[in-house]
Amino acid sequence: MGSTSDVAHCEKIRKACGSYGIPCHLRVTSAHKGPDETLRIKAEYEGDGVPTIFVAVAGRSNGLGPVMSGNTAYPVINCPPITPDWGAQDIWSSLRMPSGLGCTTVLSPEAAAQFAAQIFGLNDHMVWAKLRASMLNTWISLKQADKKLQECSL
Amino acid sequence: MGSTSDVAHCEKIRKACGSYGIPCHLRVTSAHKGPDETLRIKAEYEGDGVPTIFVAVAGRSNGLGPVMSGNTAYPVINCPPITPDWGAQDIWSSLRMPSGLGCTTVLSPEAAAQFAAQIFGLNDHMVWAKLRASMLNTWISLKQADKKLQECSL
Amino acid sequence: MGSTSDVAHCEKIRKACGSYGIPCHLRVTSAHKGPDETLRIKAEYEGDGVPTIFVAVAGRSNGLGPVMSGNTAYPVINCPPITPDWGAQDIWSSLRMPSGLGCTTVLSPEAAAQFAAQIFGLNDHMVWAKLRASMLNTWISLKQADKKLQECSL
Amino acid sequence: MGSTSDVAHCEKIRKACGSYGIPCHLRVTSAHKGPDETLRIKAEYEGDGVPTIFVAVAGRSNGLGPVMSGNTAYPVINCPPITPDWGAQDIWSSLRMPSGLGCTTVLSPEAAAQFAAQIFGLNDHMVWAKLRASMLNTWISLKQADKKLQECSL
Amino acid sequence: MGSTSDVAHCEKIRKACGSYGIPCHLRVTSAHKGPDETLRIKAEYEGDGVPTIFVAVAGRSNGLGPVMSGNTAYPVINCPPITPDWGAQDIWSSLRMPSGLGCTTVLSPEAAAQFAAQIFGLNDHMVWAKLRASMLNTWISLKQADKKLQECSL
Amino acid sequence: MGSTSDVAHCEKIRKACGSYGIPCHLRVTSAHKGPDETLRIKAEYEGDGVPTIFVAVAGRSNGLGPVMSGNTAYPVINCPPITPDWGAQDIWSSLRMPSGLGCTTVLSPEAAAQFAAQIFGLNDHMVWAKLRASMLNTWISLKQADKKLQECSL
Amino acid sequence: MGSTSDVAHCEKIRKACGSYGIPCHLRVTSAHKGPDETLRIKAEYEGDGVPTIFVAVAGRSNGLGPVMSGNTAYPVINCPPITPDWGAQDIWSSLRMPSGLGCTTVLSPEAAAQFAAQIFGLNDHMVWAKLRASMLNTWISLKQADKKLQECSL
Amino acid sequence: MGSTSDVAHCEKIRKACGSYGIPCHLRVTSAHKGPDETLRIKAEYEGDGVPTIFVAVAGRSNGLGPVMSGNTAYPVINCPPITPDWGAQDIWSSLRMPSGLGCTTVLSPEAAAQFAAQIFGLNDHMVWAKLRASMLNTWISLKQADKKLQECSL
Repeated sequence: MGSTSDVAHCEKIRKACGSYGIPCHLRVTSAHKGPDETLRIKAEYEGDGVPTIFVAVAGRSNGLGPVMSGNTAYPVINCPPITPDWGAQDIWSSLRMPSGLGCTTVLSPEAAAQFAAQIFGLNDHMVWAKLRASMLNTWISLKQADKKLQECSL
Repeated sequence: MGSTSDVAHCEKIRKACGSYGIPCHLRVTSAHKGPDETLRIKAEYEGDGVPTIFVAVAGRSNGLGPVMSGNTAYPVINCPPITPDWGAQDIWSSLRMPSGLGCTTVLSPEAAAQFAAQIFGLNDHMVWAKLRASMLNTWISLKQADKKLQECSL
Repeated sequence: MGSTSDVAHCEKIRKACGSYGIPCHLRVTSAHKGPDETLRIKAEYEGDGVPTIFVAVAGRSNGLGPVMSGNTAYPVINCPPITPDWGAQDIWSSLRMPSGLGCTTVLSPEAAAQFAAQIFGLNDHMVWAKLRASMLNTWISLKQADKKLQECSL
Repeated sequence: MGSTSDVAHCEKIRKACGSYGIPCHLRVTSAHKGPDETLRIKAEYEGDGVPTIFVAVAGRSNGLGPVMSGNTAYPVINCPPITPDWGAQDIWSSLRMPSGLGCTTVLSPEAAAQFAAQIFGLNDHMVWAKLRASMLNTWISLKQADKKLQECSL
Repeated sequence: MGSTSDVAHCEKIRKACGSYGIPCHLRVTSAHKGPDETLRIKAEYEGDGVPTIFVAVAGRSNGLGPVMSGNTAYPVINCPPITPDWGAQDIWSSLRMPSGLGCTTVLSPEAAAQFAAQIFGLNDHMVWAKLRASMLNTWISLKQADKKLQECSL
Repeated sequence: MGSTSDVAHCEKIRKACGSYGIPCHLRVTSAHKGPDETLRIKAEYEGDGVPTIFVAVAGRSNGLGPVMSGNTAYPVINCPPITPDWGAQDIWSSLRMPSGLGCTTVLSPEAAAQFAAQIFGLNDHMVWAKLRASMLNTWISLKQADKKLQECSL
Repeated sequence: MGSTSDVAHCEKIRKACGSYGIPCHLRVTSAHKGPDETLRIKAEYEGDGVPTIFVAVAGRSNGLGPVMSGNTAYPVINCPPITPDWGAQDIWSSLRMPSGLGCTTVLSPEAAAQFAAQIFGLNDHMVWAKLRASMLNTWISLKQADKKLQECSL
Repeated sequence: MGSTSDVAHCEKIRKACGSYGIPCHLRVTSAHKGPDETLRIKAEYEGDGVPTIFVAVAGRSNGLGPVMSGNTAYPVINCPPITPDWGAQDIWSSLRMPSGLGCTTVLSPEAAAQFAAQIFGLNDHMVWAKLRASMLNTWISLKQADKKLQECSL
């Protein structure tokens, strides 16, 4: 995350990662105000041999995701903490990438964790199973909600 | 893709995938007009045991990515073929997801392929190496462009 | 509706339908997370021989209306529960339809019911009469409001 | 239509209506510059006992659809000829209706005709059958396009 | 005004007109729901030989101003009661006029009254004098505010 | 006008003024780059005793209209030469006025002239008659266009 | 500033200037309602031989910055007090400058002061040193925040 | 600049700098793809003791200006090469800065050079004189254009 003011947003990502059994480290670094530290922290995760997905959380003009994505072969997901007041303006700093950057963007912190789980699930049967179970639960919940509504209106 | 009018956009994705050595199948199916076929095609790729990433290419209101994402544990990347005329309106159908969907969004077809490569590169050293080489090339190109410009202005 | 969080919006439609004497069933189904159920519920209404109008209520990216419209010959009306915060973005997922879909869009739940009544009123004199009476009431109310205001300012 | 400059847009609606066997009359009247004529023309269609759907085609600020809708019990569909240059601004004059108006909005002229057909199809088996046939054709076309694309890439 | 919900906005216009000594009548009529009454009320003011300026106050999609302007030779000023939530969308129904309409637009109710005063002031020395005095007051107030601020910061 | 690049737009205003028999002087002055000249030119027209309406034509950020309006008791009409590329942004510099300014805004140069004519027509029967004749012509033209279209489609 | 309602915004600029040891005078003048005073105040600062930077603070349509910039050789920085409700519209009156004006724009009052400090720091070692110290503090703060977060999550 | 595709935009800045007698070096570096090089190039200019202004030219999501501004005490001016197609979206990555960054934004390349000249002119009489002369020329040109227009219309 680019600032400690984004901790609440990041905790949601960590919590959702936890539900899939995926470890999640929160780090604070600003690509604008400390790009050297950003690169150093990135290198920590590149050097340990553990497949890693970076989720960049930066409000306003998002420099963190693009700078990360331009300097690593790991996947980078922008998950900017956008709000209705300036969100329709801020989102474009995450979307309008120069050529050569592959980072993608998602709005909800839970969705960022779910997408990370979908990536790890490609090679991890436990994560894959949790995703399938979650999908099934959602499907059944909708069906039950529909049934309950039908009964209410009788 | 949701319509054959998006073939050119999809061919760019396939070409870029090819540069990383990643096989890419183009399929035509509309989540609006043929959701049963969409689910059937999705199931083809789920049933073969090969880790797969879906890239959903659908113009205007994007239903393909969300419907895919809501019905698979595989990662889904929205890569809508947006243009300046209506892009600032159309993009939101890819971003404003209901809860429970993990699909992410990227604008450029080359970036969609690069992101897919970054995912496969987590477990595939050949792909990872190609990504690293590409990054190094970009870094050197920029340096050379800067040097050349300096020489020109002397 | 795509989620139980839209029940209040849907109840307004049901209430307004009631004022025209039109029966209204509320169903919960997500075209993104349960498209097979969406098609099954749709088929329930296609199979009973009763002329039916579908009103699709789905927040954020609207997949419900287009998926319904792409799979039925009955009229589908999008009535997304849009709010000022993201409404100017979300509306486009209901408007920017691919070719071949005929669904239309209206913002207010009362207006969705009124439009449905106008359709049924083409062949149902009771509904037609209620619409005419309502129009006349509105016309008189405006005239009375104008008259009252004139008297106040004397 | 509000002006003869919208004739091309209206001809597309008429042509599409023709494909469903639905008669379509084009009329020119401006709710801004000739509201008395607008009401007179509307009354022509109300007085002949034939169930009628009004499709209002008016560029820029759309007054035609709302004025029609406020004065008839028949369904009114706004089909404004919007273009990318000012469309994101103009659309709101068709959507942001005062209370008591039931008109809905659709962008494509073909979709306006299709929606009208879906309304008439509620009580007309020939129209209903044409809509079903068209849907089936679309479904098959998509499947063939997918198959052809598969064969091309072998 | 198009609805009694706009009374507060209109009272501001009346109050500001009063400060210039200009009589102001508030009338309620909807160009969408009662265009015949709108034209009748308009004719009341055309038939009395008193030079009149119409100020049209209509929220959401503004039909009142354009319909008035299309049917009178008197000046019509749109003064829509726009608010931040939908104002950036609603304003265009007042600005994007079809050819042949001359109505202008202003946001603030006080400014609408001031503009009306500026029109009447072209031929009425008392109104002109009040406008000049008001301008002078504003100029002096700014100078005093600047002076006071300078003294505070010493 | 704020720059000679707006001459074409201003000529349209002059031409339309001519059709109502209203004299129209074109002046070039920038409120940003020559506010002293702007005030001097304004004073020329205030000092001659002839009732005058100022039409301010300034592209991009409009300073001309507000500066004129803040310094005269005559009516000021903003008629910015906006185009689709930046118009939706530029228009706000003409609309979002500080308190105490009464200038109004209209987009089309012909409409600016028509509105000026409507002001002068309050006290000038010749201008008023031309406006009425023009309205009648428009009304008849629409009716003829409708009739012709009916005959064509027989 | 263009109005005393912007005092709080301006006090933030003054306070931030104080932290760099830069004197800051607050003045009230409206380029719309008192351009002659605006030019007179500007001349006060041009005539005293002290290098000066003008920070123009004007809400809604910003005329102050452009009028200042068009009449001085000193740098002018627009720092409009924009808020989410109309900010995305108002900002363009500060950005879309006619040719020949050099004023730049920044949103935050602290940033306006920091930028002014960066200009003075080009020739003033004390200011430069304070800027460097502030940057270092920010860098360390981010590092400490990151370290603290790591310890928390152990 | 962030890419060689922005050379034409940068050449305009250099040309305009030349007209004020200010040396201008064009450098290519991407804050996203080569932040280490960006910092190294920045340090070249910090180490030579010559007061320097950085003008950051980066299309789409602007990372260059913010990264520069976060790592230097010199002034940084964003001059993004925005175009109507995506400019209203891209601009926000230059404006919506995190706390602690002082970079300002200007759209036109000539204005960026003029602003830089205004900064240097604070301490350089030759540059100041050129700015004053340019202003005077502009003032006279406007006056001549106005006079010429008056003569034409006689």
